[in-house]
Amino acid sequence: MYTLYSIDGGVCAPEGFFADGIAAGLKPDNQKDLAFIRSDTLCDIRAIFTTNRFQAAPIEHFKKHGVETTDFVLINAKNANAMTGKRGVEDIETILGHAKATLKTIQNPVMSSTGVIGVPLPTEKILRGIETFDLQRRDPQSAAEAIMTTDSYDKQVAFEVRLDNGDRFRIGAMAKGAGMIDPAMATMLCFITTDAAVPPDEMKPLLSSCAETTFNAISVDGDTSTNDTVMLLSNGRSGIYHREAFAFALEKVMHELALKIVADGEGATKCVAFNVTGAANRREAAIVAKALADSLLVKTALYGEDPNWGRIASTIGASGVECDPESLSIAFGDVTVYQRGEILFDEEQEAKAARVMKKSSFPIHCDLGIADGSFTAYGCDLGHEYVKINADYRT
Amino acid sequence: MYTLYSIDGGVCAPEGFFADGIAAGLKPDNQKDLAFIRSDTLCDIRAIFTTNRFQAAPIEHFKKHGVETTDFVLINAKNANAMTGKRGVEDIETILGHAKATLKTIQNPVMSSTGVIGVPLPTEKILRGIETFDLQRRDPQSAAEAIMTTDSYDKQVAFEVRLDNGDRFRIGAMAKGAGMIDPAMATMLCFITTDAAVPPDEMKPLLSSCAETTFNAISVDGDTSTNDTVMLLSNGRSGIYHREAFAFALEKVMHELALKIVADGEGATKCVAFNVTGAANRREAAIVAKALADSLLVKTALYGEDPNWGRIASTIGASGVECDPESLSIAFGDVTVYQRGEILFDEEQEAKAARVMKKSSFPIHCDLGIADGSFTAYGCDLGHEYVKINADYRT
Repeated sequence: MYTLYSIDGGVCAPEGFFADGIAAGLKPDNQKDLAFIRSDTLCDIRAIFTTNRFQAAPIEHFKKHGVETTDFVLINAKNANAMTGKRGVEDIETILGHAKATLKTIQNPVMSSTGVIGVPLPTEKILRGIETFDLQRRDPQSAAEAIMTTDSYDKQVAFEVRLDNGDRFRIGAMAKGAGMIDPAMATMLCFITTDAAVPPDEMKPLLSSCAETTFNAISVDGDTSTNDTVMLLSNGRSGIYHREAFAFALEKVMHELALKIVADGEGATKCVAFNVTGAANRREAAIVAKALADSLLVKTALYGEDPNWGRIASTIGASGVECDPESLSIAFGDVTVYQRGEILFDEEQEAKAARVMKKSSFPIHCDLGIADGSFTAYGCDLGHEYVKINADYRT
Repeated sequence: MYTLYSIDGGVCAPEGFFADGIAAGLKPDNQKDLAFIRSDTLCDIRAIFTTNRFQAAPIEHFKKHGVETTDFVLINAKNANAMTGKRGVEDIETILGHAKATLKTIQNPVMSSTGVIGVPLPTEKILRGIETFDLQRRDPQSAAEAIMTTDSYDKQVAFEVRLDNGDRFRIGAMAKGAGMIDPAMATMLCFITTDAAVPPDEMKPLLSSCAETTFNAISVDGDTSTNDTVMLLSNGRSGIYHREAFAFALEKVMHELALKIVADGEGATKCVAFNVTGAANRREAAIVAKALADSLLVKTALYGEDPNWGRIASTIGASGVECDPESLSIAFGDVTVYQRGEILFDEEQEAKAARVMKKSSFPIHCDLGIADGSFTAYGCDLGHEYVKINADYRT
């Protein structure tokens, strides 16, 4: 039917897309902090946003204008333009007006921001930065670096999708996010480009359904930010649309980026898949999986590489779903430590489970033994680095 | 009407109560780990328990026997007797049977446990420990120490309540808890004794209503344990009952212990009152106050003494309650940093707010400006010590 090939190029991999990142002086030490993604023809754009009631100015601006097409996305890091009131939206109007006047060829620019909440945008710096943009550049790496905040590496992915009949299309993406990551919604900034000819009315439903098992299934710290955004830009340049192949590729792109974000969780040393099965239904399985990914006691036990299955059981019990100690089973990787009421945790099993936990990535299986609801959430451990990063983020 | 006088004596302050704590070998280094509270006449007893679905064996045992009177409470630390199945309850039967046979004068013993989940009780050690009990001892200090786990100090309080007509009664208590503290329910072990003649059918409603503003309003790490228990023992020895005075004293006892627990939050360096006003109703105010006390990003900012009000705003927005940036105000102590849409956060205000945060205890006021719902929750910061304590708790 179709095959995915991993390729280079990030957001510039699909035909017709350009991107770059520059240092506009928002971050210190000449670090890149201002990026653009451009398409040489108008794209359809759809986005999903944070469920936070205090949505940042860029989200308010996007919704206010009912944006449905764009050829230019401007992204800044270091300042979230959130809790900045009317001025926040006005600053965006000023900046995008200036971008259109200066860059001339762009028609319908939009903006996205990430960083500290509650500080007005340094508009002048951004205006001067825009003036230095070279719209012909294809430097997805610089763009991906410019949108980073506490990320320790850039996050990009791209695929070429080949259909059996020889048709091809591409999809590429970049994301940022390492803290303030919660399973409640979109959870970070993510920009996805494609030259597939996606029907506009299918874009948002596809984004939402893929988010459920990807960005909404990860947790670093259980906090939902004011700015979380996932944007999908489709310029249709390939002329190809195969719904099933595109949905598969989109889910794959979002899943890979979600895992990169968890693995880069602030101070994280390991990424864990909380694989919950046997719940009363899928919703309850998701509640349990996310509760485990969020639990401070579970996260610190992961950091200590301590197979403290009692904390896992306690978190399941506290999550409020239907469960019973007599039907519950818990395993670290393939090492079962508790099975339907029976504790299988002698010294040998404990040593085996501890060995599993030394890996940088492993699954924890929790079978509730009630019915067949299942869900997998992804989380990371919480160690000293998390505290260090977040105790003095602004400084 | 009535006056409260703080007195010494903890759970032994009310007439007719005895208590002691000994080292039975559950903890290393000859630390105290087994305690009793005894009344020389049968008490009425009522208790409220964790909302965790996996309630520990002592809770199951208490409920199974529909305990309503007691003269002896046995408490062990280091082992929670949770997730231990049928054997967990059988172990309690064995232990309490042995206690009755050995100690002779006791009629209706109950048991409570705290510590690691998922390990069968070291029954033999506890049986041998019971044999060394001296039932005539009044050593509330030793009892309070014996029930500690990660607590860094014992937690006791006692009051004598004097009515205007000369009548007097006493109430005393001890508690343990420093982690796994969540606002969802009872949140730790707490044993309250009184010689007031409380009508049995008023005991549980009083406990529940006082818990709402005390133990259910505190958070260290948002985890709800399998063992959380608050027990109230009333032997009626004073012959006095004044409902209003007793309710006031009970709330005061539980409030003082709740604050002691937050202040002793694992690794905590400061205790913060999240004072939410102006919410649509009391329920929504409580949701916001508890979300703030639970937020990792808020807790690490407290640890860093960083007046990062943006994280407070973001947490309010993410809590799902009715709110509006244009009506919200935020203050650290008496330093307002955000007022109804206006950012009041110049260098001078920031320096003032940072000074407030250097205190070991201070309030953060959040007025939602919607209606008149209010609630205060108590939380602490999260620093390196929390990670250290919880990464290797079992070892």
